[in-house]
Amino acid sequence: MSVLVVGSVAFDDLKTPSGGRQNILGGSASYFSLAASRLHPVQVVAVVGDDFGPEQYQVFQDRPIDLTGLIRKPGRSFHWTGEYGKDLSEATTLDTQLNVFADFHPVLPEAYQKASCLFLGNIDPVLQLDVVRQMVHRPRWIALDTMNFWINGSRPALLEVLKEVDILMINEAEARALAGERNLIKIYEKIRPLGPKILVVKRGEYGVALFSPEGNFLAPAFPLPVVVDPTGAGDTFAGGFMGFLAATEHRDLMTLKRATLMGTVMASFTVEQFGTSALEALSDNALHGRLAALHDLIHVVPR
Amino acid sequence: MSVLVVGSVAFDDLKTPSGGRQNILGGSASYFSLAASRLHPVQVVAVVGDDFGPEQYQVFQDRPIDLTGLIRKPGRSFHWTGEYGKDLSEATTLDTQLNVFADFHPVLPEAYQKASCLFLGNIDPVLQLDVVRQMVHRPRWIALDTMNFWINGSRPALLEVLKEVDILMINEAEARALAGERNLIKIYEKIRPLGPKILVVKRGEYGVALFSPEGNFLAPAFPLPVVVDPTGAGDTFAGGFMGFLAATEHRDLMTLKRATLMGTVMASFTVEQFGTSALEALSDNALHGRLAALHDLIHVVPR
Repeated sequence: MSVLVVGSVAFDDLKTPSGGRQNILGGSASYFSLAASRLHPVQVVAVVGDDFGPEQYQVFQDRPIDLTGLIRKPGRSFHWTGEYGKDLSEATTLDTQLNVFADFHPVLPEAYQKASCLFLGNIDPVLQLDVVRQMVHRPRWIALDTMNFWINGSRPALLEVLKEVDILMINEAEARALAGERNLIKIYEKIRPLGPKILVVKRGEYGVALFSPEGNFLAPAFPLPVVVDPTGAGDTFAGGFMGFLAATEHRDLMTLKRATLMGTVMASFTVEQFGTSALEALSDNALHGRLAALHDLIHVVPR
Repeated sequence: MSVLVVGSVAFDDLKTPSGGRQNILGGSASYFSLAASRLHPVQVVAVVGDDFGPEQYQVFQDRPIDLTGLIRKPGRSFHWTGEYGKDLSEATTLDTQLNVFADFHPVLPEAYQKASCLFLGNIDPVLQLDVVRQMVHRPRWIALDTMNFWINGSRPALLEVLKEVDILMINEAEARALAGERNLIKIYEKIRPLGPKILVVKRGEYGVALFSPEGNFLAPAFPLPVVVDPTGAGDTFAGGFMGFLAATEHRDLMTLKRATLMGTVMASFTVEQFGTSALEALSDNALHGRLAALHDLIHVVPR
């Protein structure tokens, strides 16, 4: 059984206070699958253009990532150009070229239709729902990411797919826009009746807040002296989180907490270098060392 | 042995999205001593005017708070008028009347000069240093709060008193202004050589970051469905934190972590009502119940 991710595989041009990169591998499905595949086999549904070559395929083929659902079409791949200011908290999009992604209609290969976990990356909620409907049995976990563009522009379709979702994974501004509330507890109260039993709010340098029927969890981001490029942090988090859940039968709050820390640590590596390069080079020792350090950082023995 | 606090005792006029209050008890020394006195006897050095009457004295006299050093002078007490917008993260000062506080020169009664812990509330760093010099032996812990007004306007005097300080307790914007850095790890690297071995950064709804030579700690704020009035949250935190440290001989990282959670929980009560009213009414059951809930919220057992 696998974790199935549907999302984008793209080329990015990035500028941050630490420098810039052009034409580097990006996209939600790239970050997600590189992170999740450390913990569990991954299946990818996405589309790329004919500019996606052996060098890019190699990044995924080194790992337990099934690319049967990565369709290659004539034309160029999705291309995003973004820039970060000094505080690194939000990217300014300078250019978005959808290219082959404009006509993306995810079709699940037969072997994908029984995946145990499904992550619906930030794409049109109509397509997200279409993917859910292609599953022959319901995954143990369905998680969804979205953004303000869909929250404001495609709310009915988003509400439709949310009914099918267990875990909604969005950032703080998106959570506020969706719920029309500022306070996280009230936001969770508004979102739970929409479908997702679990709400994961990504708060950038302030970490993650998780709300579930069994209880809540607040995790800090792993403190880093230098953040080079925040691109992909959220999708890397999702990959670590879902990979962790896919690799265990447990569904309790403690499992969700551990999944949160795994996602947090994975994301901390991503932001230390441009693009996917830190994730690609990440050793088991480094991963487990930092996970232990994060446990220490939050560990308190009550008196 | 006591915790000694020097700071302001004031009247506040407040407006928040939840409503408003006029002429309510405020000031850093008020919040601090009401919180710290739950854990350890407190000694207060501050000045009030002749508008400070039996009703106000009563709030302190119900607790182990020594008011020998609370001087009453002819004139009006310090009076602050502030307003909070919808996001509650920062107050806009509408009016500040220093009144008797303008000529405040803290003089420590003899019984105060051997206090085991000293909290220098946010006042002129020249006065903070003067208080340190009046101690007949060095307190086990000296902690200091300050603000951008002193960081930018009285930096030499502030640097002078920081040499004497163990714990610097400031908010994130103040930490950035003092260190000239955005990143917390780098901020701590800059601040440590100035004197304070321990840096506590107050991050409002995002909690507290503690840096120490033995290791760091990141604590969330206690999640609340409604925040009525953020005034005094930082000084309440400091009171819970220092009261906890004063009540124990331990100085290790785990003790600092527990002190952080105690301060966090105390502050969570303060912000649920206007002024000091929630702190005044706080029961031991409520305090310990919420402390246990905060422990649960951050508790993760590694696999």
